[in-house]
Amino acid sequence: MDERLTSGSGGKPIRCRAAVCRKPGEPLVIEEIVVAPPMPREVRIRIISTSLCQSDITFWKMKDFPGIFPRILGHEAIGVVESVGEDVNEVSEGDTVIPTFISDCGECVDCRSTKSNLCSKLPFKVSPFMPRYETSRFTDLNGEVLHHFLFVSSFSEYTVVDIAHVTKMDSAIPLTKAAGLLGCGVSTGVGAAWRTANVEPGSTVAIFGLGSIGLAVAEGARLCGATRIIGVDVNQDKFEIGKKFGLTDFINAANCENKSVREVMIEMTDGGADYCFECVGLASLVQEAYACCRKGWGKTIVLGVDKPGSQLSLPSYDVLHRGKTLMGSLFGGLKPKSDIPVLLNRYMNKELQLDEFVTHEVTFEDINKAFDLLIEGKCLRCVICMNNQ
Amino acid sequence: MDERLTSGSGGKPIRCRAAVCRKPGEPLVIEEIVVAPPMPREVRIRIISTSLCQSDITFWKMKDFPGIFPRILGHEAIGVVESVGEDVNEVSEGDTVIPTFISDCGECVDCRSTKSNLCSKLPFKVSPFMPRYETSRFTDLNGEVLHHFLFVSSFSEYTVVDIAHVTKMDSAIPLTKAAGLLGCGVSTGVGAAWRTANVEPGSTVAIFGLGSIGLAVAEGARLCGATRIIGVDVNQDKFEIGKKFGLTDFINAANCENKSVREVMIEMTDGGADYCFECVGLASLVQEAYACCRKGWGKTIVLGVDKPGSQLSLPSYDVLHRGKTLMGSLFGGLKPKSDIPVLLNRYMNKELQLDEFVTHEVTFEDINKAFDLLIEGKCLRCVICMNNQ
Repeated sequence: MDERLTSGSGGKPIRCRAAVCRKPGEPLVIEEIVVAPPMPREVRIRIISTSLCQSDITFWKMKDFPGIFPRILGHEAIGVVESVGEDVNEVSEGDTVIPTFISDCGECVDCRSTKSNLCSKLPFKVSPFMPRYETSRFTDLNGEVLHHFLFVSSFSEYTVVDIAHVTKMDSAIPLTKAAGLLGCGVSTGVGAAWRTANVEPGSTVAIFGLGSIGLAVAEGARLCGATRIIGVDVNQDKFEIGKKFGLTDFINAANCENKSVREVMIEMTDGGADYCFECVGLASLVQEAYACCRKGWGKTIVLGVDKPGSQLSLPSYDVLHRGKTLMGSLFGGLKPKSDIPVLLNRYMNKELQLDEFVTHEVTFEDINKAFDLLIEGKCLRCVICMNNQ
Repeated sequence: MDERLTSGSGGKPIRCRAAVCRKPGEPLVIEEIVVAPPMPREVRIRIISTSLCQSDITFWKMKDFPGIFPRILGHEAIGVVESVGEDVNEVSEGDTVIPTFISDCGECVDCRSTKSNLCSKLPFKVSPFMPRYETSRFTDLNGEVLHHFLFVSSFSEYTVVDIAHVTKMDSAIPLTKAAGLLGCGVSTGVGAAWRTANVEPGSTVAIFGLGSIGLAVAEGARLCGATRIIGVDVNQDKFEIGKKFGLTDFINAANCENKSVREVMIEMTDGGADYCFECVGLASLVQEAYACCRKGWGKTIVLGVDKPGSQLSLPSYDVLHRGKTLMGSLFGGLKPKSDIPVLLNRYMNKELQLDEFVTHEVTFEDINKAFDLLIEGKCLRCVICMNNQ
């Protein structure tokens, strides 16, 4: 094993390999970088495996701010604590952890409330730096600063994450690569059904966009006891894939035989779905989802990330007269430190499916293949293994 | 007493006086009309008193459909059953009743659910006719059809209302004119705080627009135990008026000293109100209300009726990333037949203020004065007394 990766490195900079995004849309470059020691309330983590999420691709391609380069992307991962900074008592060297892009400080009014998962102390933003100090822990061998991404930057053998962004795994739970998926995509989808929408048993759920997030919504709705789970996508193949996660019906949005999706949906459900989830990030699709949810009690939950500055438009009459609710869901409404352990337990009890989302696996050297696979729509989650265990 | 108003008229047409709106925006004309007997499942009601609501004014002025003339406006009233059609068992001659513009059939999936107040059997719409038969019960003395309004048409000594739109008052409760306010405005505001938003004790509420509906929201929030109730209006006088209904703070939207309302609100509440109610019917004000509600758990409730065809626009980023909820509230989310009696009881127990909303009273002959008063912003509710008791 490389001496850089041995223990006793706490307090010192670590030289290791990272997949650096130097320019928007160009292949990542595996290069040697230097990872500074953790500052107070920070944790340095050896990444075991990471996976690629659509948001990585969005920011990989983004030419203008908040796109910024050079940057280390990646925000869905599992790792082991290498060392901790001052005032970190929650985890120690050797603990298995899942970093998350949202924080859970445990102290602010939001973290203390059961109603919010949006920490006020270290609020979510797309920053190029660490959340507490607004500085980077990464430099290249020329001393140039490398930027962080979503407070995680897991496309590196080592990264530094604020303790508020770290959830410790129960040591009794074996370390599996799939568990890293709880750091973003699967938690977002399952949480949106479970925590944000609070899907009731026996209800009808419609999901717009059947990527990993949409399928994770289906999985969450299935766990909540929904009896009808309708997928809407332009790719007919998604129906078969979705059945594994509880999908019972499918509307091919590209082939509705001269009807609109809302017409088909309202006919199919006798008035609309109880819950509609938008998982793509298109204002027009949110409108369609809103139109597809049932008057009186229908909820539309927005999970998809739209372009910066975009506006969402709804007919005023429908808002007032139809008794519908529109909600947003960041990280599925989950509080990472209390809710990820619940999902992990359900995974260990074989209730929650996680391994089923991992359709591909590549080595760290082949990280650009993961980008190709996701862009081509060929995978749900591609796990990138760091080969450093 | 006029022979037309004596008992024994059931089954026969009644000649009586009504305030007919012949042309948009022109003063109502008190004239003799004929009110047909109730059809099956309908009730003919002798109106005791009625009051003027902003929606009457909106449709009084509306030149294009759904504005239609000649029409008998009015939808907030209290009356006594004169006769009932076939298959009406719920009320009988002499019962005091409150008609409502929304129905409560008690049979459909919505009426049977605790989650919806939007009856599917006789759905809300702005129709010129009776809900069940799509015909009118009113003609003038030349035989011309007079149109209904909101299934109530209370600006008439007698009207016909479908049984699904009629709530019977407990005979132990004395008939007071103020109780008629539960037929629309006060119920809408109080219900929005109580049923739609479910305002929690100790919370902060912001109300945009302090007409009767807005003040009724304050009253509802006060009853729910909100500790801070902030009014937003361009008329500073509303603060003093609002204090009677629990208002604790006021933002004069016309005078924020170079700040926006949202800046003042967020500063004043340290991050935004827990609940924001839009009570005017302006898409731009809904946006402001949405911006003023707190991240994490803030709810924005739309009560104001915007122009037909108007669109409501919200920033996609805020919808997704701020954990806020947008809801519409028709009739305050109340189910008339079960919730109006609850409010009546709270009124009788001197918990709910109703009389305080009645700032003016006119005779039926002076009904056009009520229009002037409301248009000039001089009154909350002006009760119009029929002088036929």
